Amino acid sequence: MALPLLLLVGVGGLRAAERSGGSSGSSSAMEELATEQEAEESHRQDSVSLLTFILLLTLTILTIWLFKHRRVRFLHETGLAMIYGLIVGVILRYGTPSSSGRDKPLSCSQEDRPFTTLLVNVSGKFFEYTLKGEISPGKIHNVEQNDMLRKVTFDPEVFFNILLPPIIFHAGYSLKKRHFFRNLGSILAYAFLGTAVSCFIIGNLMYGVVKLMKLVGQLSDKFYYTDCLLFGAIISATDPVTVLAIFNELHADVDLYALLFGESVLNDAVAIVLSSSIVAYQPTGENTHAFDAAAFFKSVGVFLGIFSGSFMMGAVTGVVTALVTKFTKLHCFPLLETALFFLMSWSTFLLAEACGFTGVVAVLFCGITQAHYTYNNLSVESRSRTKQLFEVLHFLAENFIFSYMGLALFTFQKHIFSPVFIIGAFIAIFLGRAAHVYPLSFLLNLGRRHKISWNFQHMMMFSGLRGAMAFALAIRDTATYAHQMMFSTTLLIVFFTVWIVGGGTTPMLSWLNIRVGDHVPSVEEMSESRWLYFRMVRILKEGTEQSRKVHGSSGCGIALTIII
Amino acid sequence: MALPLLLLVGVGGLRAAERSGGSSGSSSAMEELATEQEAEESHRQDSVSLLTFILLLTLTILTIWLFKHRRVRFLHETGLAMIYGLIVGVILRYGTPSSSGRDKPLSCSQEDRPFTTLLVNVSGKFFEYTLKGEISPGKIHNVEQNDMLRKVTFDPEVFFNILLPPIIFHAGYSLKKRHFFRNLGSILAYAFLGTAVSCFIIGNLMYGVVKLMKLVGQLSDKFYYTDCLLFGAIISATDPVTVLAIFNELHADVDLYALLFGESVLNDAVAIVLSSSIVAYQPTGENTHAFDAAAFFKSVGVFLGIFSGSFMMGAVTGVVTALVTKFTKLHCFPLLETALFFLMSWSTFLLAEACGFTGVVAVLFCGITQAHYTYNNLSVESRSRTKQLFEVLHFLAENFIFSYMGLALFTFQKHIFSPVFIIGAFIAIFLGRAAHVYPLSFLLNLGRRHKISWNFQHMMMFSGLRGAMAFALAIRDTATYAHQMMFSTTLLIVFFTVWIVGGGTTPMLSWLNIRVGDHVPSVEEMSESRWLYFRMVRILKEGTEQSRKVHGSSGCGIALTIII
Repeated sequence: MALPLLLLVGVGGLRAAERSGGSSGSSSAMEELATEQEAEESHRQDSVSLLTFILLLTLTILTIWLFKHRRVRFLHETGLAMIYGLIVGVILRYGTPSSSGRDKPLSCSQEDRPFTTLLVNVSGKFFEYTLKGEISPGKIHNVEQNDMLRKVTFDPEVFFNILLPPIIFHAGYSLKKRHFFRNLGSILAYAFLGTAVSCFIIGNLMYGVVKLMKLVGQLSDKFYYTDCLLFGAIISATDPVTVLAIFNELHADVDLYALLFGESVLNDAVAIVLSSSIVAYQPTGENTHAFDAAAFFKSVGVFLGIFSGSFMMGAVTGVVTALVTKFTKLHCFPLLETALFFLMSWSTFLLAEACGFTGVVAVLFCGITQAHYTYNNLSVESRSRTKQLFEVLHFLAENFIFSYMGLALFTFQKHIFSPVFIIGAFIAIFLGRAAHVYPLSFLLNLGRRHKISWNFQHMMMFSGLRGAMAFALAIRDTATYAHQMMFSTTLLIVFFTVWIVGGGTTPMLSWLNIRVGDHVPSVEEMSESRWLYFRMVRILKEGTEQSRKVHGSSGCGIALTIII
Repeated sequence: MALPLLLLVGVGGLRAAERSGGSSGSSSAMEELATEQEAEESHRQDSVSLLTFILLLTLTILTIWLFKHRRVRFLHETGLAMIYGLIVGVILRYGTPSSSGRDKPLSCSQEDRPFTTLLVNVSGKFFEYTLKGEISPGKIHNVEQNDMLRKVTFDPEVFFNILLPPIIFHAGYSLKKRHFFRNLGSILAYAFLGTAVSCFIIGNLMYGVVKLMKLVGQLSDKFYYTDCLLFGAIISATDPVTVLAIFNELHADVDLYALLFGESVLNDAVAIVLSSSIVAYQPTGENTHAFDAAAFFKSVGVFLGIFSGSFMMGAVTGVVTALVTKFTKLHCFPLLETALFFLMSWSTFLLAEACGFTGVVAVLFCGITQAHYTYNNLSVESRSRTKQLFEVLHFLAENFIFSYMGLALFTFQKHIFSPVFIIGAFIAIFLGRAAHVYPLSFLLNLGRRHKISWNFQHMMMFSGLRGAMAFALAIRDTATYAHQMMFSTTLLIVFFTVWIVGGGTTPMLSWLNIRVGDHVPSVEEMSESRWLYFRMVRILKEGTEQSRKVHGSSGCGIALTIII
């Protein structure tokens, strides 16, 4: 009942504010009734649009089950969620009765742009009004029209503040520690150096594409160098969720798994911080085409500051949780323990946001710390509780994002598809990935004992999928022409890579002769088998107690006693 | 990372809307930057206020642990959450530097009330503006002042749409079926007839109190008969969470437990529907003091319509989930199963809200249906997963509400404490409870095989606590003078009953000679012990598989094999 309910509030935020504004002080009952009814109508529409998403997710779950049941592997659940989203998007776009002015984008030239805030003086008191949007003159009395397209569009911050944190936390919390730390150096190199290289190469290539488009006359609005760099940062976050799911199922090589997983987890964090440092820098550097050394170093400084700050926040709250769980006997009460764990992990996010760092990054490192320290202090029940809780949240959030992506292709109102830009972007991400994987692997192999072989490098090259993070970063700001074009292109890249590359993983693995069915028990699994023993003893004890309570009335109770 | 994040969006809703309004089309970079910074500042403050609540909950959890550890029973966790809330409320109220105009309520007479919506014509295009609120003339450029008091106040709908559903669902889902259905007749009688009688008696008594106040000259504003009835409905929802927790711990009489629990769960639903039918009826009947038969029957019709509609919604989605889980082999994939369960249960809420019924009531019946049918189709892992998931959500939501209550006593800006009204209300709820418990018990005893004894009746009388539901209903509408007074009074009643009555449960039990330590295993527990057996066998199998994988390298693996 938790996660998506919030969205309801997100969507319904304005409504509630409107209502409270309308009913303050003494007011005529009729008017209040009208606002009340309007608010109710809006609330009803919010519920319907959320129901659409729930229906989509339910369908996805049932189809995933069918696929798993029949061992179909060419399509991952996220790809499926996108397809269902697409279908519903098409229905909403072309199936619902069109309301006039829907397809016309809300554009207005500089001259007649309205103020975003109005101050009205009513007998000496000032009231503030905020711009709600333009309405076509014919509809003045019918603003709350039944426009499903508008209703299914969420506030982009929802992705950053609600859907990404559980996904990222779960990634950190479910990290397979042994293999991660064994390959830490390489993972850090891929994530930091690799993402920076990829961002820089893609940014510069795209700037070339943009120049070309200007020459040919295909670009009608401004497109700065920083926009290109931002696109590079956005699109450099890989998300090989599909590939990793298949790796997991086939028990592919654990080192390759650790490299890919570690890189994708950490480069999400790098991409977020990179894009925010570029954005933070944008307004003053708007017209600088040339390379500015001071500005560059300032950006690097901002990057390092935000990154290390977020890292610290996450690590500190993780360690505090570990200490609290170690020095109290909280593990006698798994409910309290789980609640504390949840609250502390969540407070990391808020703490980082409150301090001006990046919550999502802090949550990632908090997850890793919790897995490394706190997990060992938890009771057996809390271990499975926390794992399962975040697994469910992660699953729901991820599938929600992917079905939203499918929907957005048809319902987002300001798409700008430029074939030149799209083709350029595909070439750029290919080159960016290549320039990042091969040279870095060569350098790393100089120092590594277990070399990263050629087929591993090809597989890493191939697994450069783009997913939820690229989408969330791209949708964050779609105000300008450049950003809208970047958003549409990102959406297409995500679609393409999730479907085509995701579907090709199994053939690719066998083509590259990468071992599957390789299962070396990790440290966690070893200790897990020790826990199995304790769990069994505990259950046997529970069983005898139970059978004593039942006074031998249940056959099972007796059976348990005999076993002991 | 889920539940309270939503609140962030709830609080931040306006902010995001404001931002997207400000950045549409081409606009000057400087202005955009300013809005951006303002939005960031607001976001930061939201994070800080949410952090306050998380800190409160963390403190509560740690103190609860201490109390449980030392077996302290005079204060329940909800009472504790309220105390911590109170302390923080006092600090926020008196400890932070006061900003001018904070204590002045936003009041304006009929003449200078501003429009809630403005339409502005800018060169032929119409733009809609909504009222954001009054601002004092000196602060026109500093609207976003750092006012913690305002920041920690949530939109009341958050309680109804986010915090109550998991609490109510958990109540339905964790119902002890056997005892509930054995006492179903009595429970229904207490919940429906009892709540109606209590609502009517309290409403009429309070109307007398209001008349008295008008005579004495203590009432400065309007207070209608329907307001009194609404107060009766609000305050008739009992919430003996404290008492039941102690019952559970001491293993008090199971039939008494079932009666109290069943009544409190169902009368929440009755109170919600009752109060909405009274509110729905209010605007036209404002000035009717006399009893209007037609209006009365119309209200009854609305009540029955909403109640049965919500009941149907809940039952239908529950049954659909049960059928889906029965006819698919979803139980091989507990994650999918849990996600489906969660989504279906949540969709009940949205479906009911979309159809104009009451989501919270639908969720309750969905919970009961899920426990009765779906639960038996779930895999063992999903059973514990769903139970634990909703247990955690319920725990967090409940403690959040109670600590918010503590906070609200000092931070809510429009309290109206009228001693006469408060004393009248305490007497009225006492009489209302008495008029509901004793006569009904007498009538029920005529037909019951197991009579409800006198000491049980006294205990039921004593356990008429008011809690989260009364608070949520009261905070829903605090626009008029009457409603503000009702809200403040409800808050005091909740405080008093939770602390005093909650603390007195253990002495009361021994004084009334009610059996404790009485534990008859329920059907669920019997089947649970059967499940223990299966779980054990499964774990043993897991263990052998594990040990085979480990190739005898782990001692535990071998130990497990030997046991088999």
